[in-house]
Amino acid sequence: MTQNGRVRVGIIGSRFEADIHAAAIKMAQEAVEVVAVASPTPGNAAALAKKYGIPRVFTDYREMLKESDIEMVTIAAPNYLHAQMTQDIAQAKKHVVCEKPLAMTIAEGDEMVDVAKRNGVLLMYAEELFFTPKYLKAKEMADAGAFGKVYLVKQSEKHFGPHSPWFWDVNRSGGGALMDLGCHGIAFCYWFLGRPAIKSVYCQMGTYVHADKTQAEDDALCILEFANHTVGLIENSWARRGGMDDRIEIYGESGVTYANLHMGNALPTYSENGYGYAVEKAPTTTGWSYPVFEELWNYGFPQEMAHFARCTRGKENPQSTGQDGLIVLEALYAGYASAGEGRKIDLPFRPHGVKTPIELWLHGNAARKGKV
Amino acid sequence: MTQNGRVRVGIIGSRFEADIHAAAIKMAQEAVEVVAVASPTPGNAAALAKKYGIPRVFTDYREMLKESDIEMVTIAAPNYLHAQMTQDIAQAKKHVVCEKPLAMTIAEGDEMVDVAKRNGVLLMYAEELFFTPKYLKAKEMADAGAFGKVYLVKQSEKHFGPHSPWFWDVNRSGGGALMDLGCHGIAFCYWFLGRPAIKSVYCQMGTYVHADKTQAEDDALCILEFANHTVGLIENSWARRGGMDDRIEIYGESGVTYANLHMGNALPTYSENGYGYAVEKAPTTTGWSYPVFEELWNYGFPQEMAHFARCTRGKENPQSTGQDGLIVLEALYAGYASAGEGRKIDLPFRPHGVKTPIELWLHGNAARKGKV
Amino acid sequence: MTQNGRVRVGIIGSRFEADIHAAAIKMAQEAVEVVAVASPTPGNAAALAKKYGIPRVFTDYREMLKESDIEMVTIAAPNYLHAQMTQDIAQAKKHVVCEKPLAMTIAEGDEMVDVAKRNGVLLMYAEELFFTPKYLKAKEMADAGAFGKVYLVKQSEKHFGPHSPWFWDVNRSGGGALMDLGCHGIAFCYWFLGRPAIKSVYCQMGTYVHADKTQAEDDALCILEFANHTVGLIENSWARRGGMDDRIEIYGESGVTYANLHMGNALPTYSENGYGYAVEKAPTTTGWSYPVFEELWNYGFPQEMAHFARCTRGKENPQSTGQDGLIVLEALYAGYASAGEGRKIDLPFRPHGVKTPIELWLHGNAARKGKV
Amino acid sequence: MTQNGRVRVGIIGSRFEADIHAAAIKMAQEAVEVVAVASPTPGNAAALAKKYGIPRVFTDYREMLKESDIEMVTIAAPNYLHAQMTQDIAQAKKHVVCEKPLAMTIAEGDEMVDVAKRNGVLLMYAEELFFTPKYLKAKEMADAGAFGKVYLVKQSEKHFGPHSPWFWDVNRSGGGALMDLGCHGIAFCYWFLGRPAIKSVYCQMGTYVHADKTQAEDDALCILEFANHTVGLIENSWARRGGMDDRIEIYGESGVTYANLHMGNALPTYSENGYGYAVEKAPTTTGWSYPVFEELWNYGFPQEMAHFARCTRGKENPQSTGQDGLIVLEALYAGYASAGEGRKIDLPFRPHGVKTPIELWLHGNAARKGKV
Repeated sequence: MTQNGRVRVGIIGSRFEADIHAAAIKMAQEAVEVVAVASPTPGNAAALAKKYGIPRVFTDYREMLKESDIEMVTIAAPNYLHAQMTQDIAQAKKHVVCEKPLAMTIAEGDEMVDVAKRNGVLLMYAEELFFTPKYLKAKEMADAGAFGKVYLVKQSEKHFGPHSPWFWDVNRSGGGALMDLGCHGIAFCYWFLGRPAIKSVYCQMGTYVHADKTQAEDDALCILEFANHTVGLIENSWARRGGMDDRIEIYGESGVTYANLHMGNALPTYSENGYGYAVEKAPTTTGWSYPVFEELWNYGFPQEMAHFARCTRGKENPQSTGQDGLIVLEALYAGYASAGEGRKIDLPFRPHGVKTPIELWLHGNAARKGKV
Repeated sequence: MTQNGRVRVGIIGSRFEADIHAAAIKMAQEAVEVVAVASPTPGNAAALAKKYGIPRVFTDYREMLKESDIEMVTIAAPNYLHAQMTQDIAQAKKHVVCEKPLAMTIAEGDEMVDVAKRNGVLLMYAEELFFTPKYLKAKEMADAGAFGKVYLVKQSEKHFGPHSPWFWDVNRSGGGALMDLGCHGIAFCYWFLGRPAIKSVYCQMGTYVHADKTQAEDDALCILEFANHTVGLIENSWARRGGMDDRIEIYGESGVTYANLHMGNALPTYSENGYGYAVEKAPTTTGWSYPVFEELWNYGFPQEMAHFARCTRGKENPQSTGQDGLIVLEALYAGYASAGEGRKIDLPFRPHGVKTPIELWLHGNAARKGKV
Repeated sequence: MTQNGRVRVGIIGSRFEADIHAAAIKMAQEAVEVVAVASPTPGNAAALAKKYGIPRVFTDYREMLKESDIEMVTIAAPNYLHAQMTQDIAQAKKHVVCEKPLAMTIAEGDEMVDVAKRNGVLLMYAEELFFTPKYLKAKEMADAGAFGKVYLVKQSEKHFGPHSPWFWDVNRSGGGALMDLGCHGIAFCYWFLGRPAIKSVYCQMGTYVHADKTQAEDDALCILEFANHTVGLIENSWARRGGMDDRIEIYGESGVTYANLHMGNALPTYSENGYGYAVEKAPTTTGWSYPVFEELWNYGFPQEMAHFARCTRGKENPQSTGQDGLIVLEALYAGYASAGEGRKIDLPFRPHGVKTPIELWLHGNAARKGKV
Repeated sequence: MTQNGRVRVGIIGSRFEADIHAAAIKMAQEAVEVVAVASPTPGNAAALAKKYGIPRVFTDYREMLKESDIEMVTIAAPNYLHAQMTQDIAQAKKHVVCEKPLAMTIAEGDEMVDVAKRNGVLLMYAEELFFTPKYLKAKEMADAGAFGKVYLVKQSEKHFGPHSPWFWDVNRSGGGALMDLGCHGIAFCYWFLGRPAIKSVYCQMGTYVHADKTQAEDDALCILEFANHTVGLIENSWARRGGMDDRIEIYGESGVTYANLHMGNALPTYSENGYGYAVEKAPTTTGWSYPVFEELWNYGFPQEMAHFARCTRGKENPQSTGQDGLIVLEALYAGYASAGEGRKIDLPFRPHGVKTPIELWLHGNAARKGKV
C-alpha cells in the first residue's frame, strides 16, 4: 500500500480501451491511480501518459511488471495477447484486470484462470455491464420480484465498427461483432439471471457492410438457452449507422422493463454548429444527435475500476472474474459453431484443434452452403 | 354493384376479429359496407349486427352465401375452419378475405388458392401490416434508398394472450404466439424486402406463463434467412405484460429506422380516475398508460378493407394474397419444425402427415430433450 | 349538388396553404373535390391545378366566384386579404372556409361574421387542431374525466419561420410567431376547455433570429386566463431549429397527458443518403431525422375539409366558426398589447384606431423600454 | 483537518432534505463525512443518525455548533429558520451550506451574506441544478457554441406536493410551488446564461388542487427577462400527478436541446408486483412506472457536497453562493408581486414592510380581482 492509500495500477495498451482505463481510474481516484503505462509502438504510451499525467512509460510491458509498487495491471491489448500477458502479470505477483473477451481459445482461458490461482493473484474480467448503473436498476427490480419469474433477457450493442484496426484481422481478434460485442451480451444475460448454466447457443451471422475489410461477421444474432428455462437474445452489429446503441429488455411473467443507454438517456439535440463530442462512435454533432452525459460513469467504468481496486486490497470479492470470462468464451465458441452448422450447440462445448472461434463459422457447413 | 356503389360484404364470425372487420369497413364506408353477418352461436351475430347496424343475420354462414348481392366475404373464424369456409365462399362465386394465418396445413392452403382460381374469385389475405401507415413510411424510405442495402428487418408483436379462448386449444389454432402473431412478422419481413424467397427458418420457443391453459408456446423468437442475403428477426409473445406492443426496426448499410406503434405513438398519460379505453389488451387505464389514438387507422384496417373492396371491383390488384399467406404458412411449419429439431430448416419445406404446425415442435427431439 | 355527390370547392391561393387544401380535399374525396383555383400571380394557379388535376384556373378570384356549381370557397391568401375575400365569397352565396388568423382587425372580423350571416352562408374557420386525431384523444380522455378538473392546458408550435415571404411583412401578416402560430394555441386551449370566456392575456415576445428580415416577433410566450379558473400556456417560435414541433400538455387535478405530433409520433431515422421528405420544414433528411407519416391526416386536414363539406350540405354544424376566429383575434390583440405594456390585458379588449395587432407591441411602452 | 482528511459536517434537520444531505455525503465519502445531526423533535435526529451511522446527535443545533471539529454545517430546516441558523453557524466560525430558498426576506438574505463575510466563512447555497450531470452537458454544449446565441431557457419542476408539512404553512415557507421549486428554475436560467442581470419577472399562479391545505399557490408559471436579451420560462407545480418531473429546454439561434431527468432517463417499467422504489414522489410502483437509477447522483447532490467540501478546504471557489440565493430571492419577491399586480415587475425590487413573498400575491390587486 502506498502513502496516499490508493491502489497503484499499470496499464498495458495505449489506444481506445487503455484510454478508458486511464480516464475511469482518474474518476475513481479516491481508491486507485495509474502509475505506469506500457505499449510497444514508440510514442503511444508517452502520449497517453501525457494526457493523464502518468509518471512512468514503458515500451515493453515486462519491464513495467518489475516495478514493485504496482499492485494491479490492466490488459487493454488485442485479444490474442491476453493469455501471455496474464501469465506474465500473474508471475510478477500482480493482480490482473483483463479486457473482454478473455482469450482466443478455451485452453488459453483455462490456463489464465489457473496461473492466477497458482500465483495467488486475482484474475478480474473487465465486464463493465455488471457495473452499468441503469442496468443495475433493472437487476435490482428483477431481484425485488418486480417481474416475477424472468423468461427472456435481451441485450443489444451496435455501432459501425471498432476503433482499433486489429479487430478487422480475425487472426488477432478471433471473430467479429459477436466476439467483440456479444461477449458483453452473453455475460450480461448470464449475470442478470444469477449465473445459471448455459444449455445451448444458436447464432445467425453475416458480413453485410465491411466485407472489403474483414472476413469477420459484422452483424450477429445470438440465442442462449439457460438451465433455468430462460432465454437470452443478444444482438450485435458493426454495421449499424448513427452512433453507439446499447440497450436491454427484461421480460418476466409479471412485468417488463426497458433500459436504453443512448437514445433513452441522451439529450435530443439539434445543432447547426456542432459541439465537440456527442457519444462513442457518433458520426457527427451537427444536425440532430443524441449526446450522452458522463458517458464513462453511465457505462460503469469508474465503478468497475474502484471495485477492482477494493478487491485488490481484499475489501471486496470480484463481481466479474476470469471464470465468468471463460464461460462467455465457451458460449462464443458454441455460437460460431452453431452459425457454422445451422443448429444450436449444446454446452459444455470444447472443440479441439481450433485456434479462433470464427473459424468454426467460416469453415462450417451452413456457412459454406450459405455463401452468396 | 349496388345503388350506392359500395361493395357489399358478409362477415363470418362475431368476436374480436369480426368486430374489427365491421369497424374498419364502417371507417371505409365510401367504398364498402357490411350487409350481413353469420355466426353459429345464437345471439352473437345479432349482437354484432346491432352494434354496427348490419341488416342481415345468419347462424349458418352457408345460408349467408346464398345472398346474391354480397360480393365479398370476410373470414373471422378459428384457424381450423378457414379452408372449408374458403371453399364454400369461392364456390358461391364471392371474393374471399381470409384472416391470418391462412390455414392449418399447407395442403389446405394450396387447395384454398386453387379453389379461388378455379372459381374466378380473389383470395385476399388479411395482413394489415402491409397497410399500417407508420410501417409504410419505413418502406417508402427504404425503397427511396435511405438505408442503402437493407440487411436486417425486425418485427415484434407482443401482448398477454389472445382474446378468444379457441386460441389456447392447439387443435383449433395450430400453434401459439408464433402461429398467432409470427404470421404477421414473417409476412412483414417478406413484403418489406420485396418478396425474396425464404431460405431457412430458425425458431426458439417456450411456454412460460400460460402452461396452465395451453400446450402452445407463449413466447417465440424467429430468425428468417432470405435469398437476397438478408435476415428477419421476429419476436412474439403472449406473455408480455402491460398491453399491446408492435414495433419494427430496419437496418441497412447506410442507415436505420425505428417505428413503434404503441409507446412510440401514444400519449403518455397518468390518470387517477381512468378513462375508458387505452389500447388493445391494455390492463388498465389508471396510473400511467399509453393510450393510442385512431387505433384501427394506425394499424391500417380501414385502408386494407377499402383496398380489398377496390380489388373486388377490379380497380386494384390485391397487395396481400392467398399466395402470401401460403408462403407464411410454410415458414410457420418450418419454424415449429426448427424449434423441434434445434436447427434451422431449409425451405421449401413440405412435411407429410402433419395436421398442425405445433406438433412439429411438441414432438420434436429438441423439445423433448428441453423439457424442464 | 353535383352528380357524384361531392361538394365542389374553389381555392383562393396557390402556395403552401393552398397546396394543403388541395391535398387534404383529395384525401377526403368521398365528400369533396376541388374544381377551381384562383391566384393572381400568372402561372401559380395553373401549377397547382396541374399538380392536383384541378380543371379550372383563374387569376382573379372574383371570376371564379361566378362559377355557379362551386359551393364552398377556401381562402389560402395573406391575412390582410381575408376580410375582402370573405365579403366577396359570401355575396356570391358560397360558403367560406377562411384560413387562420381570421383577419387583420377585430372590426374586419366582426364584419366577416356579419356578412356571412346576412348572406346565409357559413363562415368556417380553418383551425385544424380541432380535428387533429392525437389531440382529440387527449380531449376525449379529459371529457371522460381522466384528469378531473383541468387547470392548465399547454400548446406549443415552433419551427424556423414561415414558407411564404409575405409573413415577414407585418403590414400583410399583422404580426409574427404569435399571429401565425399562436392563433392555433389560443384556439386550442379555448376549445379544449369547452369555450370558457378568456379573462386576460399576457405575452412575452422578442425578435431573436430574423431581425434582418422582419419587425415581427420570432418567439412568443402567451398566458391565457379563462373564466373557469384555468390557465393556458402557449409557446410559439419562428426561431426554433430542427423542423416542425407541435405538442400539447394537459394538467388536471387527477392526471396529466402529453401529446407530441412530431418527435413523439415519428420514426427516429438515421440515413447517410437522405430520402426525399421527413416533415414540414425539416432542414434535411440526412443524419438523424424524425420523419412523420401521413402528415396531413395526423394534423387533421382531410378530416377538417370533409367536415366542412358536410356542413356545407347541412349534415353537420361547424365545429370551428368565424366566431371562434374572432375570439382568437381579440386574444391576439390583447396579447400584443400586453407585450407592449408589460401587464396582462383583460378582455373584452377592443382597441381603436389600430390596423394590425403587432403595432400594439411595437409602439408599446414596455417594448420601447426593452429595446436592446 | 481530521485524520482521514475528510471535511466533517453537521446537519441541521432530520427529514427529507436532511436525509438527502446525509445520503449525498455518504456517496462523496472520499471528501466529506457527517459527524453530527441536530433536530429539535425528540427521536428524529437519532433516527437519521442510526440510518447513516452518524456518531453524534443533538436536539439543539446550538449545542452541535460547539463541536470544534465540525467545519461545515448544512441547513435542512424550514425556510423561516435559515437566517437565524446561518448567523449562529457563521458566528461559530463554521462554513454554511443553506438549502433553498435562501431566506424569507431580502433583508434576511442580505444579513446572511454579511454575517458570513464578517466571520470569514463561506455561505454556500445548495442549488443542486448547478451540479446535475445531464444539465451540465446542456451547458457544456451551449458554451461550446452548439446553439449560437441562446434566446430562451426553460426549466420545469413539478410533482404533487412537498414531503414536509411545514411547506403548506405560508408563514413558515413564505410561498408555494414558486417558492419551493421556482427557486431552482430561476437559479438555473440565471446560471445557465452566465449570470446576466434579471431585468423583470412576470408570474401567473393559482391554487387548484390543495386549497384545503394551504393558501399557497400550487401551480406557477414564471417568465424572466434578462439583461442580455434572453428569456427564461419556469414552470412549477405541486399539483402534477404521476411522480416527479424535472426537465429543461434550451433554444438558440442555431439549435435546441432537451434534457429530461425523469421520463427521459428512466427505465419504462411495467410491474404487477411492484418493486420498492421508483423515484421521488412516485405514487406507486405497480402498473407502468418510470424508475430512475442513481437518483441522487443524477440530481447532482453528491457532486455538490463534494464541491462544497473542497471549497471548505479552499481548494475550489463556490459555484453556488449566498449571493446567488439572494438574487433568486429577489426574483421570487418580484414574481409574487407580479402575480399580485398582473404586470411584470422590474428589478431591482426591494419591497418594504413585507414578511413573506407570498403576501404580495395574496394581497395584490390582481389576485383579489381574480378570486373565483
